[in-house]
Amino acid sequence: MSSALAGLDECIAPQLADVEKLFHAELMSELAGVNVLVRHVARFRGKMLRPSLLLLSAQATGQLTDAHIVLATVVEMVHMATLVHDDVLDEAELRRKGATINHLRGNEAAVMLGDYLISHSYHLCSSLNSQVASRTIAATTNRVCEGELLQIDNRDNLNLDEETYLQIIERKTAVLCAACCELGARFAGADEETCRRLETFGLCLGTAFQIQDDLLDILGDVKSVGKTLGIDINKGKMTLPMIHFLRTAPREHRHLLRSLLEGSELDKVERIRNLILPSKSIAYARQRAQDIADRASAALASLPDSRAKGVLQLMAQFVVTRPI
Amino acid sequence: MSSALAGLDECIAPQLADVEKLFHAELMSELAGVNVLVRHVARFRGKMLRPSLLLLSAQATGQLTDAHIVLATVVEMVHMATLVHDDVLDEAELRRKGATINHLRGNEAAVMLGDYLISHSYHLCSSLNSQVASRTIAATTNRVCEGELLQIDNRDNLNLDEETYLQIIERKTAVLCAACCELGARFAGADEETCRRLETFGLCLGTAFQIQDDLLDILGDVKSVGKTLGIDINKGKMTLPMIHFLRTAPREHRHLLRSLLEGSELDKVERIRNLILPSKSIAYARQRAQDIADRASAALASLPDSRAKGVLQLMAQFVVTRPI
Repeated sequence: MSSALAGLDECIAPQLADVEKLFHAELMSELAGVNVLVRHVARFRGKMLRPSLLLLSAQATGQLTDAHIVLATVVEMVHMATLVHDDVLDEAELRRKGATINHLRGNEAAVMLGDYLISHSYHLCSSLNSQVASRTIAATTNRVCEGELLQIDNRDNLNLDEETYLQIIERKTAVLCAACCELGARFAGADEETCRRLETFGLCLGTAFQIQDDLLDILGDVKSVGKTLGIDINKGKMTLPMIHFLRTAPREHRHLLRSLLEGSELDKVERIRNLILPSKSIAYARQRAQDIADRASAALASLPDSRAKGVLQLMAQFVVTRPI
Repeated sequence: MSSALAGLDECIAPQLADVEKLFHAELMSELAGVNVLVRHVARFRGKMLRPSLLLLSAQATGQLTDAHIVLATVVEMVHMATLVHDDVLDEAELRRKGATINHLRGNEAAVMLGDYLISHSYHLCSSLNSQVASRTIAATTNRVCEGELLQIDNRDNLNLDEETYLQIIERKTAVLCAACCELGARFAGADEETCRRLETFGLCLGTAFQIQDDLLDILGDVKSVGKTLGIDINKGKMTLPMIHFLRTAPREHRHLLRSLLEGSELDKVERIRNLILPSKSIAYARQRAQDIADRASAALASLPDSRAKGVLQLMAQFVVTRPI
């Protein structure tokens, strides 16, 4: 994201550098052995989307303060914790990967590293002189966990409907983006209505982001995007193009998709891809993402124009057009 | 624990019932699918040791308040989260257990359930009208995670020394007990010195508890205790009797233990047990636990006598004599 939006985030570049510094300082332990393991967190480092949303929301609605650096670090830690815990493998995956698997020190280390991150995020958050941020962050992670649990509960559920899919991604991804934007505004001194607008912006941006993420899992060319395709399919995760396809495609095509999803053919992902790509379901999912991204932009319409507001609106469009 | 200390905790029985109620109410989700998974948390339910410590510490030093019910529920959730996450298996264990494993919905569900618990514990804690508890709880979980990471870093380390072993169990187990006792006293209006005494009490009790727990892993009779023995050995976890044995036993015995620990014989646990049981290392570990339990009792000496103080002192002795 940072390269595609290169230059656009220069208005928050010094603050993002401070977030990086604080992130590492907070995770440092007095125990050398712990630091060895914590260093592995680096391989999950992302594009700082959430800290950027928080800092830009502050700039677009009021005054950036030191508290924003703390909060931006907190949300990055929360996000990193979810990435690390998503890396924990289940039995089926372990079997599938067989002997090639070598995840650091294994599942247990991934669990504990994620816990270390989430604990440090709450600890850092509790250093602020108000319970508001702690309450918002914990309420948000409550919902993130619900999203993950709901997703697990609907694994291999070929009858998953669009509404439940949206419930999952809203909780799993969008509520944290919403909290970033809301906290950014709130700690910048924005009024309640502005905080609600930023929250809506973040919720829509996060939802659109996740629909696009799910789309890329089936669309992306492994050579150009450099990541494994069909992870969702292999995890039994139903995504919007598949849900739409099973609702609208010709009867035979629907039957074929169902039997492919239920089977375990080696070329399963490739065959599902070839079935869905020419259908209207890709365009449908794209359009849903675009509509929601437009709702994000609209939520900011009444804000006074500023560099930060412009960047936020570009980000809302970028999340649905990004190639990776 | 509750049966062995039957009747002793009647002075906090109504509060413990309130903790149970709040525990379940807080974990209830508006999503039915989430509640289905959360119901599995029940199988980890324990003996309410930590809520009991917190409530008794309050009674022994001042006034029990509604905040104590909240805090006691928070620490139980934190403890349950660690139990659930300890249940996540690594690759080696999964291979060893083979087809028999059927952990609910697998590792991923265990990770997410634990996250759900920890998130709800922080959220509940942030409902209090002060950051003090949030800071203490998060600082505590920081250290719990350090203990777990340090333990993973020292897995299969046959040269683990007693000092590092104590660092691990202090963080992994004792700091949460210390936080229970300290928060109990602090929210009961105790002065700083009393809070520090209760913290020391909890730290010593927790340390003694964990040494005994480790002892029982090697001592216990699987028929009477009804749990698998030698889990620590199979996990590559060095415990106090083994550490002492490798430092003090005759040269040949030490060599034998090392080769047994490094090997993977089917009767490994049984052979290690037969080697260590007749040695002085069991008595050594028992004595260490007893000394530390006595330090716990001593920390309370200057408190005015009360029913709650008496129960706390009995608990300190019970943790090192309990059979399970």
